[in-house]
Amino acid sequence: LEAFDGVRVRSGALEAFAAALLRDAGASETGAAGTARALVDASSRGFDTHGIRLVPFYRDQLIGGRIDGKASPTVTRPMPAVAIVDAHDGLGHPASYRAIEEGIAIADTVGIAAVAVTRSSHHGATGCYTIAAARAGYAALGCTNADPAVAPHGGIKAFFGTNPISFAAPLPGEAPLVLDMATSSIPMNRVLLRRDTGTKLPPDVAVDAAGEPTIDPHAATTLVPLGGAAWGYKGAGLSVMVELLCGPMTGMVHGFRRKSLGGPDFTTPVPIGHFFLVLKPGAFRSREAWLAMAGDLVADLRAQPARHGEAGPQAPSDPEKREAADRAVRGVPVDRATWGRLVASAEAGGIALPPVEAAG
Amino acid sequence: LEAFDGVRVRSGALEAFAAALLRDAGASETGAAGTARALVDASSRGFDTHGIRLVPFYRDQLIGGRIDGKASPTVTRPMPAVAIVDAHDGLGHPASYRAIEEGIAIADTVGIAAVAVTRSSHHGATGCYTIAAARAGYAALGCTNADPAVAPHGGIKAFFGTNPISFAAPLPGEAPLVLDMATSSIPMNRVLLRRDTGTKLPPDVAVDAAGEPTIDPHAATTLVPLGGAAWGYKGAGLSVMVELLCGPMTGMVHGFRRKSLGGPDFTTPVPIGHFFLVLKPGAFRSREAWLAMAGDLVADLRAQPARHGEAGPQAPSDPEKREAADRAVRGVPVDRATWGRLVASAEAGGIALPPVEAAG
Repeated sequence: LEAFDGVRVRSGALEAFAAALLRDAGASETGAAGTARALVDASSRGFDTHGIRLVPFYRDQLIGGRIDGKASPTVTRPMPAVAIVDAHDGLGHPASYRAIEEGIAIADTVGIAAVAVTRSSHHGATGCYTIAAARAGYAALGCTNADPAVAPHGGIKAFFGTNPISFAAPLPGEAPLVLDMATSSIPMNRVLLRRDTGTKLPPDVAVDAAGEPTIDPHAATTLVPLGGAAWGYKGAGLSVMVELLCGPMTGMVHGFRRKSLGGPDFTTPVPIGHFFLVLKPGAFRSREAWLAMAGDLVADLRAQPARHGEAGPQAPSDPEKREAADRAVRGVPVDRATWGRLVASAEAGGIALPPVEAAG
Repeated sequence: LEAFDGVRVRSGALEAFAAALLRDAGASETGAAGTARALVDASSRGFDTHGIRLVPFYRDQLIGGRIDGKASPTVTRPMPAVAIVDAHDGLGHPASYRAIEEGIAIADTVGIAAVAVTRSSHHGATGCYTIAAARAGYAALGCTNADPAVAPHGGIKAFFGTNPISFAAPLPGEAPLVLDMATSSIPMNRVLLRRDTGTKLPPDVAVDAAGEPTIDPHAATTLVPLGGAAWGYKGAGLSVMVELLCGPMTGMVHGFRRKSLGGPDFTTPVPIGHFFLVLKPGAFRSREAWLAMAGDLVADLRAQPARHGEAGPQAPSDPEKREAADRAVRGVPVDRATWGRLVASAEAGGIALPPVEAAG
């Protein structure tokens, strides 16, 4: 974690504030609500990279016209267990929540659903949608394609997006388990941040222009897949799986063939595909039996012996659960640079600022 | 690749030989055929660790009574898109092929299928089943749980199996793309082999009894998840996903709670769960459009610039495709130790040996 300097805002107030800023940029009531929900959900669970700090990024795209803030996702069911959500070049977040809703409705009927989201846009953290399914009692797998930032294994040039895979499932008596991982070791943002701070990169996560591994953030041009120089074919393989689920299933070209999400042009749609699976645990065994076994697995995992001096094994999302509990009490942190941008937009649009909890 | 010393046998002859050896150990005609098909498919594609060399392992379990060679898998469909294949403590390979068949039938009707395999046994390489679906024109995801061999991230003691994930999909005009990867960097067999050969391990793939990373194969007691000391929580997260799909969905306890597959007791069933998804590409877009996009992705990937002096980026399973082409011409290699075991069993059972192609 990088050192924090900023303000803290209660999640409810932050969500309303984010929604107002998105409406101000042209989003519909429901589009703004769905996007604010996802961003504050991510921030509430500690995913600051994919949380409230992205509001200006979506505002730029809404104001520029790349994203149609008034678009409303439509759904078709080409086969009984399959849905296609067409986001119509609108916000990716409400389209992804819509995909989960539809997936749940289908899974209730037939046991599992596959939902492809087409003509979408950047949807923040994929885990926001799989966790929504898990909170409702379903297991879910989700992935999205993204801008090229990761070289193929043995390559030198960005080809894959960080192509995240997220899996979430309900647990008995506690918040769902959520895995939400890039198929690279680190995101490109980390490289940019380390350039600013002058700190070295960890070994074996990035290469220079010649494809040689480097820990110099200024020399690093491209990430490498999870697994690094020796085992990166595994991370790359997962990335190919994500591309095949998010591209051919949705009709959206893979990241390498389409325009970048970065500016300065924010006028033309840059369509993205997402892919979700929703499974009904009760379709396989009784819901209670399913939950009991999932609980046993996680309990056994948490009880494993730890390396000397370390905290010990955890289940995926255990650290985020602690962070979420802390943020529920102290408010969601908003870093100073993001807060400054949000305040400037709010003042320009005549939007009231949310109450600030504390400055630390 | 380790140096090869052994014989080569044509795949068809090898499959018939393996089936005869399995029948001799008590497998039914169809059980032996399904198992031999999977083992020789794996060997034909270069997966020697999960190929013909496992025949004695399955014979031990059949003869000991752990695996009921006469069991025939039965199928139920609790919901229209979900099937449960009960292997009845029989061979895992025919049960897994049965799961794919059922998955295809379901996917043809509703677009996607989830198939849980319960009361199964070790099924060899999971990719044998996903590739079977892909050869028939479907995309498939498969996973299986396995004996504990991998410490949790930050742990010191084996908890997870190598818990493989396999994904396969059809490609236009060539064999399917197949990813078939353990969620650890290497298998435990590699450690055992390096103990025999006195060779160091690669860095960051195993730990000693105190949980410290080691490259000494004799000190190494446990593998670590893909990602190693820094990013192993990702490999561990994927492993948890595999456990949740193969355990609670099938009713089979996770590896940490059940008996090991190793001997010497081969009398009692050690039930294992597998989990498969089968997707019909034509359910999302036209089959032709789907294949064209998948082909574009793979073509773009193969065309990526290579690091100086290296062969350059490949698609998953490209190396196996080259190996398969070579083995189709020269025969499937069987290492000398395995061949000796197979010959001894064949002579004891009065089974004719297959013609041997060449001794190199």
